[in-house]
Amino acid sequence: MATLTLEKIAARGYGASGNLVGGETLKPIKFERDAPKDNEVLIEVLYCGVCHSDVHQVENDWKNTIYPCVPGHEVIGRITYAGSAVTKFAEGEIVGVGCMIDSCRSCSACRDGEEQFCEGPHGPTMTYNGYFKPDASEYNTYGGYSTNLVVPEDFLLKIPDALDIRKAAPILCAGITTYSPLKHWNVKPGDKVAIAGIGGLGHMAVMIAKAMGAEVTAITTHEDKRKLAGELGADKVIVSDNKAEMKRHEKYFNFILVTIPDAFDVNPYVCLLRRRGSLVTVGLLAPYKTPVNNMDVASQGRSIGGSLIGGIAETQEVLNFCAEHNILPHVEMIEMEDINDAFEKLKDDDVRFRYVIDMRAFTAKNV
Amino acid sequence: MATLTLEKIAARGYGASGNLVGGETLKPIKFERDAPKDNEVLIEVLYCGVCHSDVHQVENDWKNTIYPCVPGHEVIGRITYAGSAVTKFAEGEIVGVGCMIDSCRSCSACRDGEEQFCEGPHGPTMTYNGYFKPDASEYNTYGGYSTNLVVPEDFLLKIPDALDIRKAAPILCAGITTYSPLKHWNVKPGDKVAIAGIGGLGHMAVMIAKAMGAEVTAITTHEDKRKLAGELGADKVIVSDNKAEMKRHEKYFNFILVTIPDAFDVNPYVCLLRRRGSLVTVGLLAPYKTPVNNMDVASQGRSIGGSLIGGIAETQEVLNFCAEHNILPHVEMIEMEDINDAFEKLKDDDVRFRYVIDMRAFTAKNV
Ligand SMILES: [Zn+2]
Ligand SMILES: [Zn+2]
Ligand SMILES: [Zn+2]
Ligand SMILES: [Zn+2]
Repeated sequence: MATLTLEKIAARGYGASGNLVGGETLKPIKFERDAPKDNEVLIEVLYCGVCHSDVHQVENDWKNTIYPCVPGHEVIGRITYAGSAVTKFAEGEIVGVGCMIDSCRSCSACRDGEEQFCEGPHGPTMTYNGYFKPDASEYNTYGGYSTNLVVPEDFLLKIPDALDIRKAAPILCAGITTYSPLKHWNVKPGDKVAIAGIGGLGHMAVMIAKAMGAEVTAITTHEDKRKLAGELGADKVIVSDNKAEMKRHEKYFNFILVTIPDAFDVNPYVCLLRRRGSLVTVGLLAPYKTPVNNMDVASQGRSIGGSLIGGIAETQEVLNFCAEHNILPHVEMIEMEDINDAFEKLKDDDVRFRYVIDMRAFTAKNV
Repeated sequence: MATLTLEKIAARGYGASGNLVGGETLKPIKFERDAPKDNEVLIEVLYCGVCHSDVHQVENDWKNTIYPCVPGHEVIGRITYAGSAVTKFAEGEIVGVGCMIDSCRSCSACRDGEEQFCEGPHGPTMTYNGYFKPDASEYNTYGGYSTNLVVPEDFLLKIPDALDIRKAAPILCAGITTYSPLKHWNVKPGDKVAIAGIGGLGHMAVMIAKAMGAEVTAITTHEDKRKLAGELGADKVIVSDNKAEMKRHEKYFNFILVTIPDAFDVNPYVCLLRRRGSLVTVGLLAPYKTPVNNMDVASQGRSIGGSLIGGIAETQEVLNFCAEHNILPHVEMIEMEDINDAFEKLKDDDVRFRYVIDMRAFTAKNV
């Protein structure tokens, strides 16, 4: 279509009402989106990854959820309409949408390509549960567990031809969330890198760090993931409950990326860092379980950092990197209607390694 | 003297017996040191700084004290004998001794000039409470609260002529401990740097960061240190109990150096860091008071590090830096006999800013 005169776009999705009493579940929901502006596109959603933070957000674990909450920030879709000012993308093109759909575009973070740290009045506009208009009462955004999305072209990602679009969606959050710190903390060929927590984020981190040329060790709490982690390409696997194995790796790693999503004791991991090494925690947006022991940190000049997704240009970079290195998320495909079951399994760590919703049947339904 | 035939050197000092019941105090003590080897010098101690860690060590706060404990690792002295293989120093020369008197000299840390992280069997040999001989039963070292020291020439520091030797001693621990992280974390002219805790370490940090060209903010818990901190050259002073003042500086600093010696809550300081900023804690060799909130760390890509003194070459560097920039510790001179009173005042934070023991009378005493 060449023009679009509607003010609102009808959408269907799965959302949470905010009725947490008795356990929140996602239910079918109808809503409207503002029609695309000149610089925006309308996207038909084809695939959407299921991120651990979707569960946290639906359950209001971070005390910032705005209901109704329609999750989904790992989106692969097809452009069905492009505004008149859109120049980099065309109708019919397959594109990606990650965790953000806008930012202030003028602060120092945005100018540095770190839109995730946007210093505008409300930070970046997250793909869901984000401020839509800084000064309006209607300020919630709805994510990719839905038939469509409206996104400014500057926040769209190109999907390289080499990537299987059924499996690529998790690169848009799990991929960039792990690629960004590996890049920022300057992981080099030959570095000894550990990835702790081998789930949705961790399995991407193992493959990416390996492709960067590092010697990669997977650290898991589960003895039964030892084999799986090896199959992802890890050079070694450590089970964190195995004290002898942990002890043997004290002062061993240049860099440790921790993807454990719940409060944990960081001190045993700090001890695995060699002199001047850094540990970065992604995924945990809460306090650690116990105080950091600065004796361990200072005695080897170590550092503990945190990282949050990555900028738009860097997200394009990780998509290209995955295409170049034949990296694809390991996914289990589900239908939209299976989402509550998937959330339960995700909470039980019972997924290898990421659920992706095949939205095609849901989106095609004429209701 | 040109030759030394003694096997042992008699020494007098002030030491702790390990009788912690009822409160440990330092008492006069006599002991012997091994006579200097060919590569070592004998030093007559002239001045010795009183470091907060002397108190921790005497009171066994780190559970690693070896008694008797003769503290002192900020030493200015005169060489009274130089072994036959000593080439860089001469008898009669005024020299400095800091926190270490030896290390393995062959590990990667030693080769990188980071002897403080020596990976040898016992780490570096600390000036006091250090392993003297890795495989001997007699393995304690005794520090500078004494008439003399025996030190390998590679662990001696040159004292630049421009430095007042009565005041220079604290550079050897307080100076290097703060200079090293400011340098390692790459503080540049124009950077916004905060120094939290304005005591022995902090007052050096304010002066050094200022000389590095940073905009320096002193953060103190004491309203009554506001004026003092300004006099050290701080561009601004924040009182940490003042919530409005703290709030106004959220996301403000590129780098924060925390010199608070007791367990504290690091989270309010983390929030003061701007995007990608780093906070480094020195002095606290124990757990923080509360768990670090990774929400605050990750949401701006921040880091929390720790640092421990500095290498020998870097210690020479800070001595030269202080000489070049006319930086001298602010000291209160005391006599050896006043040490227990000084410890009490130090525990009450009642010193501006470092005690230095004038050892000359004690050393000269013929007993
Ligand atoms: Zn996510
Ligand atoms: Zn911005
Ligand atoms: Zn000290
Ligand atoms: Zn060494």
